[in-house]
Amino acid sequence: MNTMLPVTLHSDATKLLLLDQTELPTIEKFLEIDTREDLYEAIKKLRVRGAPAIGVAAAYGVYVCMRKETYASLDEMQKDFSSLKSYLASSRPTAVNLFWALNRMEVRFITECTLKTSTQDSVLTGLLAESKAIFDEDQKMSIAIGKHGLTLFSKHMGIMTHCNAGGLATTGYGTALAPIYLGFEQGYDFKVYANETRPLLQGSRLTAYELNKVGIDVTVLCDNMASLVMKQGKIDAIIVGADRIAANGDTANKIGTSGVAILAKEYGIPFYVAAPTSTFDLETAIGDDIEIEIRDGEEVINGFGKRTGPEGVKVYNPAFDVTASKYITAIITERGIITHPDRESVTSHLKNK
Amino acid sequence: MNTMLPVTLHSDATKLLLLDQTELPTIEKFLEIDTREDLYEAIKKLRVRGAPAIGVAAAYGVYVCMRKETYASLDEMQKDFSSLKSYLASSRPTAVNLFWALNRMEVRFITECTLKTSTQDSVLTGLLAESKAIFDEDQKMSIAIGKHGLTLFSKHMGIMTHCNAGGLATTGYGTALAPIYLGFEQGYDFKVYANETRPLLQGSRLTAYELNKVGIDVTVLCDNMASLVMKQGKIDAIIVGADRIAANGDTANKIGTSGVAILAKEYGIPFYVAAPTSTFDLETAIGDDIEIEIRDGEEVINGFGKRTGPEGVKVYNPAFDVTASKYITAIITERGIITHPDRESVTSHLKNK
Repeated sequence: MNTMLPVTLHSDATKLLLLDQTELPTIEKFLEIDTREDLYEAIKKLRVRGAPAIGVAAAYGVYVCMRKETYASLDEMQKDFSSLKSYLASSRPTAVNLFWALNRMEVRFITECTLKTSTQDSVLTGLLAESKAIFDEDQKMSIAIGKHGLTLFSKHMGIMTHCNAGGLATTGYGTALAPIYLGFEQGYDFKVYANETRPLLQGSRLTAYELNKVGIDVTVLCDNMASLVMKQGKIDAIIVGADRIAANGDTANKIGTSGVAILAKEYGIPFYVAAPTSTFDLETAIGDDIEIEIRDGEEVINGFGKRTGPEGVKVYNPAFDVTASKYITAIITERGIITHPDRESVTSHLKNK
Repeated sequence: MNTMLPVTLHSDATKLLLLDQTELPTIEKFLEIDTREDLYEAIKKLRVRGAPAIGVAAAYGVYVCMRKETYASLDEMQKDFSSLKSYLASSRPTAVNLFWALNRMEVRFITECTLKTSTQDSVLTGLLAESKAIFDEDQKMSIAIGKHGLTLFSKHMGIMTHCNAGGLATTGYGTALAPIYLGFEQGYDFKVYANETRPLLQGSRLTAYELNKVGIDVTVLCDNMASLVMKQGKIDAIIVGADRIAANGDTANKIGTSGVAILAKEYGIPFYVAAPTSTFDLETAIGDDIEIEIRDGEEVINGFGKRTGPEGVKVYNPAFDVTASKYITAIITERGIITHPDRESVTSHLKNK
């Protein structure tokens, strides 16, 4: 990588090291994780977030947690794997990459266990190898998304993004931000507008932080300024990530995404979703079937060291919304571009490896 | 008034007493103002805000500032009036009620000065009377808007509002919230959704505060949640205030309003604007001609007592946007309802007193 991106996570094979994203942009601190409780807490509290990064963290997490245990038998080990998997899967309900990564680890686990020569050590070695493979694929995925995505952009574009689907949401260049980093390296002169993304401000805390760090022109906006800057002609394209994509292309992403997509339609601006194919959930037919995580209202009215709502008031704090595929100009994956996503185009894209 | 609303401002005829809205919802503190610099600062810093309330504050402000001075002659007094008027008018560029109130005070000032029996005292008495008249009319205005607006609502509606166009934005029941208070007094069972309204959170700090105080069912939302709650069918109508309305019905209001209006159109929900006729600016033909106040970026990335954006990042912080009249189902004034506002219907509404 040419661009000096922040490191989201890595592993020294005894611990998982996670950049605590709740402390950004002011403090860059790594958490050392080797217990399931700490990993659960880190995912739940969004210390690590972004669908692809959660997947990689969960994969390494399974390995570093299991290697500390001593099991009476492979059977015992298998029981613990199942319970660990369920526990971690319950940390966040919407991001499908979490389940995808845990399922991959499970397949590897079972494969390793059924070998004639299986020992606890050999199973652990397999789990570590699988974690590394998921990590490596994640990095390649973001470069591939970047290359495909960049074909949709031209040199001097104004680009809006929502939440953070950048380096910090993956282990590489990100998803939505990958074409921006690749373009930047090739001398493209993008002007990026980062919606701050209430309540947890991943846009101003994370997206603006990582783009600013490498010298990309980025301007922070409050979420409610999107309509005005689109009207002013400052935005030529919008690109966001995804937490789960249904079989018909309906896309769950950070709360507010669907509003941005509807504004884009009204102002005639293309709206792109960038996500690895692991984000698709073909068992979910349409967006309405996606479970939306509801979080604590205190995040909204007591989030920054200062109370901003009256005592006892009701707060509604959904973490995601679903953007109907009719508002999505194209979905960019590591394999290419799905224009006008619908059940047919999504199915056909996922068939062609 | 039956409903126990917070008092926005009052005057003991020597000082202007303003509830410092920047301290809400946690602290209820009145500022005692009798200098032009303090009044300018209070308007600029949004200690008093809401177009109608700014108008009333400016009117009383002119009186309490001038009564402290000793002028060599009526001519000197007139010069000071002009300079005071320009100074206060420069505190916030978008809210037309400020200029409207200052112009009314000027007409009264000139009228008083041209009387044969004019003395500095008699002119001051006239200014105080005019301030009181503006205050009284403001209270009547909000009741009238409430009555007209309530005809558009039914008993169990879910109602969304943006920013604060409530009691705190006027000296009475507010504009957008007036129908809600009147309905509440008549036993209507509204569910109000208050968009928090970044960056200064007038929705969660002020609207939720005043509705919650009187016992109206109110839920705070982040601005970017509007699309989801509309999609969920929770919203039957949207009502907002206005800072300036152009001759064709295009409406400048708090940043984010135009986005809410576009979402309302997409989801088929009526979108209402409530404002006194003093908010119309017929010299402004269309919304694009309205000057939009751009405020300090620190309000966005350093507003909660905690830094939420990286050092040195660019921030764009427009305080208002303009909602095109095509998105507005109706404008409610103290005189009645303008359905499908356009140049013709606005002109005809303003002619009929």
